[in-house]
Amino acid sequence: MDFDLSGYLSTKRLAVDNTLDEILNGFEKDQRLITAMRYSLMAGGKRLRPILCIAAAEAVGGKEPEVIYTACALEMIHTYSLIHDDLPAMDNDDLRRGKPTCHIAFDEATAILAGDALLTLAFEVLAQPSYQIKNIADRDYLSVIHKISRAAGCQGMIAGQIRDIQSEGVAINLEELEAMHQAKTGALIEASVLAGGILGGARVEEMDGLAQYARNLGLAFQVTDDILNVEGDPRILGKAVGTDHYRQKSTYPALLGIEESKKRAKKAVENALKAIDFFDIRSEPLRQLARYVLRRKQ
Amino acid sequence: MDFDLSGYLSTKRLAVDNTLDEILNGFEKDQRLITAMRYSLMAGGKRLRPILCIAAAEAVGGKEPEVIYTACALEMIHTYSLIHDDLPAMDNDDLRRGKPTCHIAFDEATAILAGDALLTLAFEVLAQPSYQIKNIADRDYLSVIHKISRAAGCQGMIAGQIRDIQSEGVAINLEELEAMHQAKTGALIEASVLAGGILGGARVEEMDGLAQYARNLGLAFQVTDDILNVEGDPRILGKAVGTDHYRQKSTYPALLGIEESKKRAKKAVENALKAIDFFDIRSEPLRQLARYVLRRKQ
Repeated sequence: MDFDLSGYLSTKRLAVDNTLDEILNGFEKDQRLITAMRYSLMAGGKRLRPILCIAAAEAVGGKEPEVIYTACALEMIHTYSLIHDDLPAMDNDDLRRGKPTCHIAFDEATAILAGDALLTLAFEVLAQPSYQIKNIADRDYLSVIHKISRAAGCQGMIAGQIRDIQSEGVAINLEELEAMHQAKTGALIEASVLAGGILGGARVEEMDGLAQYARNLGLAFQVTDDILNVEGDPRILGKAVGTDHYRQKSTYPALLGIEESKKRAKKAVENALKAIDFFDIRSEPLRQLARYVLRRKQ
Repeated sequence: MDFDLSGYLSTKRLAVDNTLDEILNGFEKDQRLITAMRYSLMAGGKRLRPILCIAAAEAVGGKEPEVIYTACALEMIHTYSLIHDDLPAMDNDDLRRGKPTCHIAFDEATAILAGDALLTLAFEVLAQPSYQIKNIADRDYLSVIHKISRAAGCQGMIAGQIRDIQSEGVAINLEELEAMHQAKTGALIEASVLAGGILGGARVEEMDGLAQYARNLGLAFQVTDDILNVEGDPRILGKAVGTDHYRQKSTYPALLGIEESKKRAKKAVENALKAIDFFDIRSEPLRQLARYVLRRKQ
């Protein structure tokens, strides 16, 4: 029987959404801060990072319940970064995932604090004893926290964001563009896969394979993101297109043209697949996820 | 020989500053983000939270090197909260620790990201294997991360900050004021003391004593903070005074009057001291720190 990716994606998305909901339900209702956190967190994202984390764990023999909270923490960090990136002082975006951005729906102070709170909550969830599994070593949880914080921090996602802001209207070359994206998007995608690997009990060579898989997947993801900003449908994307051009941002299509960009994305996916070609059948979701990145519409 | 608190404070402050400097030196120089992080982190704070963490560890038989990185992580979280609180969308302050605030010295986007990066770096430091000591259990490090993230998050510091913003110009009663301060300031002070206790190897009854000590110390600290906003010297404080009155913020002096506020602070310090009266001589720094809160000028 063929593997049903769309069924897999909806099942995992539901598991992630339910767990996020459960975590948020632990807090007092109708507080403005919690309402804003929930608003952005439950705005219907693809849940790519949590699903990658779960799929990576499963690929090395782990089970979804062992990584579900870690997966949710990754989505919290991703969402916080979107809230802060959208702020007037940054990208000044009004629309995200088809809805008004957090500072539009609430206000700027609440959006800043909701972002801060989601980032902080991610680490609380990662270190929460009742979310941890007995047969996973404490050292592995620490290692996951270390990898994720590093990927999200001043040498990872935040470094990428500041370079992104600084490079608006500035001509950068392909190497600088790749370094910027590797920091801004690639690092957290890689950490998502590696966190799944660690908690799923990956052997050393499996971890190496996962790292290479993730690096190439992150690249493919970023190239297709730039392509969607040119060719995508704003109704499906849930955000405006053509914004990179308008903001004079360097992108893969701008530097390489659309066709060469598509070739790059395809090559990166091939490399991702090759990196895990020694994995067994349990890695099928990871493989299909990589192929999915090429044909995604949002 | 009498215990020399001012010598203790300067020695510990130097140890914290040196370690913060060492951590920041691990990053590429002359990057705008790192420069902004360093600017706010090294602006000459009192280092109260890190010193409390070290003193609590020492009080139960721990040593400074066992907690110095944790102490630094606490200062990073405190500094991030100041950077974000000072933003135009929040308190809109121009001056902090006697210097232009981060968004004035840099710009708003950089200040938001520098805050985000310091918060994230705190968790990276807490989970960094090379900063950890062999004879401390991994479980204890996880427990420290959990306590600190909880104190800093949407039920702690950030909850307090949003309530603080919401209560400008609104009459709140003493109970609401205490709950707000307990969340905004008290929770992280408590976490600082408890983190020191955990890593210092405190027994259960010592942890209970430290928790009560910290709760009372946090209260005393907040009351004296409000008093300094009325009676303090802006040159020593490094920030403007009279701002609470101007912003129509509810404060202890506004609700209780200056004299009654001073009595409250004194009573809280007495309770803090009583909570650790069964500790031995190694708790002398903790005791002196509590007394110091009453007579501090900044």
